[in-house]
Amino acid sequence: MNLVLIAIVCGVIAVLYGIVTSQQVLRAPAGNARMIEVATAIQEGAAAYLRRQYTTILIVGVIVAALVFLFLGGLSAIAFVTGAVLSGAAGFIGMNISVRANVRTAEAARSGLQKGLTVAFRSGAVTGMLVAGLALLAIAVLFYVLVVPLGYAPDARPVVTALTALALGASLVSIFARLGGGIFTKAADVGADLVGKVEAGIPEDDPRNPAVIADNVGDNVGDCAGMAADLFETYVVTVGITMVSVALALKGSPLLLPVMTLPLLIGGVCIITSIIGTYMVKLGAKESIMGALYKGFWTTTLLGAVAIFGAAWYAFDGNLGQTVSTAAGTSFPVMNLVWASMVGLAVTALIVWITEYYTGTNFRPVKSIAAASQTGHGTNVIQGLAISLESTALPTIVIVVGLIVSFQLAGFLGVAYAASAMLALAGMVVALDAYGPVTDNAGGIAEMAGLEEEVRHRTDALDAVGNTTKAVTKGYAIGSAGLAALVLFGAYTADLREFGAQIGVSANLDTLFSLSNPYVIVGLLLGALLPYLFGAMGMTAVGRAGGAVVEEVRGQFRDNPGIMDGSSRPDYARTVDLVTRAAIKEMIIPSLLPVLAPIVVYFVIGLVGGRDNGLAALGALLLGVIVSGLFVAISMTSGGGAWDNAKKYIEDGNFGGKGSEAHKAAVTGDTVGDPYKDTAGPAVNPMIKITNIVALLLLAALAGGGSIVTG
Amino acid sequence: MNLVLIAIVCGVIAVLYGIVTSQQVLRAPAGNARMIEVATAIQEGAAAYLRRQYTTILIVGVIVAALVFLFLGGLSAIAFVTGAVLSGAAGFIGMNISVRANVRTAEAARSGLQKGLTVAFRSGAVTGMLVAGLALLAIAVLFYVLVVPLGYAPDARPVVTALTALALGASLVSIFARLGGGIFTKAADVGADLVGKVEAGIPEDDPRNPAVIADNVGDNVGDCAGMAADLFETYVVTVGITMVSVALALKGSPLLLPVMTLPLLIGGVCIITSIIGTYMVKLGAKESIMGALYKGFWTTTLLGAVAIFGAAWYAFDGNLGQTVSTAAGTSFPVMNLVWASMVGLAVTALIVWITEYYTGTNFRPVKSIAAASQTGHGTNVIQGLAISLESTALPTIVIVVGLIVSFQLAGFLGVAYAASAMLALAGMVVALDAYGPVTDNAGGIAEMAGLEEEVRHRTDALDAVGNTTKAVTKGYAIGSAGLAALVLFGAYTADLREFGAQIGVSANLDTLFSLSNPYVIVGLLLGALLPYLFGAMGMTAVGRAGGAVVEEVRGQFRDNPGIMDGSSRPDYARTVDLVTRAAIKEMIIPSLLPVLAPIVVYFVIGLVGGRDNGLAALGALLLGVIVSGLFVAISMTSGGGAWDNAKKYIEDGNFGGKGSEAHKAAVTGDTVGDPYKDTAGPAVNPMIKITNIVALLLLAALAGGGSIVTG
Repeated sequence: MNLVLIAIVCGVIAVLYGIVTSQQVLRAPAGNARMIEVATAIQEGAAAYLRRQYTTILIVGVIVAALVFLFLGGLSAIAFVTGAVLSGAAGFIGMNISVRANVRTAEAARSGLQKGLTVAFRSGAVTGMLVAGLALLAIAVLFYVLVVPLGYAPDARPVVTALTALALGASLVSIFARLGGGIFTKAADVGADLVGKVEAGIPEDDPRNPAVIADNVGDNVGDCAGMAADLFETYVVTVGITMVSVALALKGSPLLLPVMTLPLLIGGVCIITSIIGTYMVKLGAKESIMGALYKGFWTTTLLGAVAIFGAAWYAFDGNLGQTVSTAAGTSFPVMNLVWASMVGLAVTALIVWITEYYTGTNFRPVKSIAAASQTGHGTNVIQGLAISLESTALPTIVIVVGLIVSFQLAGFLGVAYAASAMLALAGMVVALDAYGPVTDNAGGIAEMAGLEEEVRHRTDALDAVGNTTKAVTKGYAIGSAGLAALVLFGAYTADLREFGAQIGVSANLDTLFSLSNPYVIVGLLLGALLPYLFGAMGMTAVGRAGGAVVEEVRGQFRDNPGIMDGSSRPDYARTVDLVTRAAIKEMIIPSLLPVLAPIVVYFVIGLVGGRDNGLAALGALLLGVIVSGLFVAISMTSGGGAWDNAKKYIEDGNFGGKGSEAHKAAVTGDTVGDPYKDTAGPAVNPMIKITNIVALLLLAALAGGGSIVTG
Repeated sequence: MNLVLIAIVCGVIAVLYGIVTSQQVLRAPAGNARMIEVATAIQEGAAAYLRRQYTTILIVGVIVAALVFLFLGGLSAIAFVTGAVLSGAAGFIGMNISVRANVRTAEAARSGLQKGLTVAFRSGAVTGMLVAGLALLAIAVLFYVLVVPLGYAPDARPVVTALTALALGASLVSIFARLGGGIFTKAADVGADLVGKVEAGIPEDDPRNPAVIADNVGDNVGDCAGMAADLFETYVVTVGITMVSVALALKGSPLLLPVMTLPLLIGGVCIITSIIGTYMVKLGAKESIMGALYKGFWTTTLLGAVAIFGAAWYAFDGNLGQTVSTAAGTSFPVMNLVWASMVGLAVTALIVWITEYYTGTNFRPVKSIAAASQTGHGTNVIQGLAISLESTALPTIVIVVGLIVSFQLAGFLGVAYAASAMLALAGMVVALDAYGPVTDNAGGIAEMAGLEEEVRHRTDALDAVGNTTKAVTKGYAIGSAGLAALVLFGAYTADLREFGAQIGVSANLDTLFSLSNPYVIVGLLLGALLPYLFGAMGMTAVGRAGGAVVEEVRGQFRDNPGIMDGSSRPDYARTVDLVTRAAIKEMIIPSLLPVLAPIVVYFVIGLVGGRDNGLAALGALLLGVIVSGLFVAISMTSGGGAWDNAKKYIEDGNFGGKGSEAHKAAVTGDTVGDPYKDTAGPAVNPMIKITNIVALLLLAALAGGGSIVTG
């Protein structure tokens, strides 16, 4: 269990890094009184959001915990609560640092670009390291406690179920943060624009608009708390289920323990390389901000490759040539697991690169959307949609090649290892993402506080890069969610093979799961439908919640006429609370989709076509969700990012610049892209994972997991 | 072979109906000199389009025919040519009638709504009956010739391969008509608008615009020739492969021949009910045009149900209780095949109803898009996208339920029978679709010839209904293409089971095709990618080809200044020819996608993961294309239709009416929806089918089909 203990130490280091760095960030000067006033309003808004959001999560969490206890037993319930609490903590702390770093970034930008960059990036790194550190701690400590003090075998059923329940806890927070948060951020954005710019005729980011603070809070909700919860979930799912898969595949093998716990150590060492990476984020001679951030990312990745090799060397006492033999009869040298991990790193790097190509202003896709804006709103949207469809191709091919290579290296364990290595970089990736809203807010504060032109120039430069990093990390998030879901799906089939007899599966599993079984086709079709339906619900939800914002703001203007002449302050927190409530109300039905769909499909198809076919349709549904969800999510997030930057590209003076007809068309495209990239697209990630986790837990419940665990 | 001969007689009746009815249409008065002038220009344009398009098809067809001859033998080559020629003939004649009926509809509308409706619908019915009749003749005659004079057993391999090659011939025309035609129609539309309305400042449908005739020709290209070729292909594929599936499933059964040939008879009797249906298209007291068309559709469907029962009664000598036993060991009463056919009719009716709900102006979806237009271009597009995503849900559920019920009734043969019955209604459905462009053109002619306000009112009313029928029939086309593809996929797996050993498949097929085989996941992902990539290419192609139109029109204005002052006529035909060439050039790469993807995936995956896994990945690719393509196509066609009618709804005086800000936003939505519903969406249908057909032929070639057939 040495590897687990070292991983725990690394997790603790990540948390310590978070504490130390957040102190550093908070010690930075917070600017003048006007700046502090605006920042305080954002902080109050964030607090209002978090209060409402976490209260709701608490209520739902207690109910789900009770259900988990009922069906799966006490251990699983504890694991579930752990996952939820730690994921919640990462998002909570991250967001609190974020809304305090924004004003400090604005202030730091007054003395130079590097200073602004440092404050903004460090605050993002706090969130990043907390996500990776707490996720790693959650799995490692849970596993350690189960195996050492409680004495379960590493491959015992209760361990499997508890790790899955841990993932479910993370999923709970993730769906709230991604879907609820996604609706919040865009409803606030759309609502603020409609009622401010259109109705009241006041400019964007005007402090008289009661929804303007909600808009600023929303930036953090999506790209700080949302991404944190999403990747926390993916991390826990991937590493946890990788361990489960190893346990199922290497039953009784002498190498079981090291192969099972190496992913934890890989997570641990990559936290260390991520921390080193954060110190490499420095502007070079060319003052390229993106270059500085990439220096951090590449340092993390390259050192990570070396560190993974070292970790494996340590885990197997330098004997990387020894053979791992699975229960299914395949075998491969240990070194192949290292190579599979390298595949994971390569997939990450390629997806980052591809997403930047599709969303960066220097390349064909964004330029083509900008050019199409010259002929009107319609052509801008058409080109944007074409790019969004096209943007799925290369990531799919990368994932497919990664899948094939890692499978060739070490079977499904290779795929799981590749996914785990991909997730080991999560700390750095979340740092890049959480950097975005800080700079975005910093720009807003500079605007509202009337800072010097030069400062706003710097915050704008920081913000423009933030757009790209947000898009890039979304590509990573969906890519890793896809791989994680495949690992989950692998666990579903392995579980069914393992416990099939116990729950009364009579047919041969291959026959059941064969593409020529019509219930498999039915499952694939129904699974593929889920992301479409979910996306549709998410997008209409934004419209409705945005409407609620308009009502609220109109009410404040009516009840408090002092707002418009500047003599009285709008009630920002009330607006934030209202948007939060509206968003939570809107997310109820779509969030039930991934929870109920597997259960309903299993029981309905089971009733019509027999229990075995119910399980076959359920398995196919999982794969259908993954396959279709991957395309829906990538096309939405990349397309949205491309639309956003096409507008930026025109604002930089191309095709007529700001105020031109082309610019108006580009604004339309950006508006369309907003719910695509910030609501529907990212929310597909937790949806995919939850569908798979619910299916796994359904199996566990059917197999009487509860009694096994508690008994 | 009695059933086959009766089916042939029915096919001949359909062709005779086409001849008689087209004489009737052509005998109707063609209006005044100005009308005839405009109509002649459209006819010349259509001729230019057909010349260029068919010349290209001829060249490509000769090459493909040579390849088919080389790999699959002479019989298949003849079948291929037959499929291509007959599909081409249906489109060619249909379009020629269409562009002659338009002016006659306008003239007939001068004496009343019913008269206009009759001319327009009859001309659509000519295309419809030719499609159903020629398709039925193609399969029935080919089958008859192979079995009777040539003496092949009905289930012999050459019969199977020849029927597949027949489908490939239809596919060739279909991809040109759908993809090339789709690019043509929207490039002409976009190009005409950009250069006319935007640059030259002349109104829409102004005869001085050299691209205006291309735009009018384009309407017929998409919804007459395109739909004709698409459904001809689906018809041939479905009925042909249903027969193949029966042959494989009932090897040696005494019921082989009647079960195999009953689908032909069903096609035959439904042609008769379709012809009766066309005479029911009469306005009632409420003067509802949609109601009149629906009278025809429902008459056809209900009489069809009765006729199918009668056909089965005849085929099995009244003994519908006797048991059909398949080679795989399942058995069911003959009556279940009748019930499965009823499922096909029910699926058709439900899809028609659902599509009307999503695209009709009386229902929530279209109204919600219209309402969202009030807050701007962006919100219109967002709501439209949400509706387009949502619109996939009910059709998917209908297809899934249809799949389960028909499978429960009679296994995969039930599914095939359901699909065949669905296609048996193709004649009526194409009639409804081909009615659309005739009325659309009639409106344009009335506009350009300056006919009375009252006449244009009537043609507008006819045209508005055309928008709905076009959308509805697209829903039917994609739904039936999806089922057809599933039948094809079933044939692929059955073929592999049958001929697997011959081509050296060593593994168990179920193990190979199991969802837990990673190469299956790879295939699903790559298959799902194809419609996305194809859609992206289609949409950007429209933009580029539209740009070519702009250049051409600018050139004509420059070289011939007389055009603008009305003293000289623009060269319409040259513009049409140019757009045709541009469209054909643009379709090269996307049309290679469905042809090359199966071949490349088989060989590349075969190289990496072994031949067996190559076949597994290929099978999964087929299913991936179907699953993903269904969603992409439904969302695009329904979404596009909804956008179109949301604009119409506003133009009817809602939310500010024509010229309001809401209307401008709705125009943007309509523009976005155009390439969605007329280019990318419908072209997905042939893409799905071609991918599957190529895979089947690849199997045949691997199994040395050539030598078997010729030997």
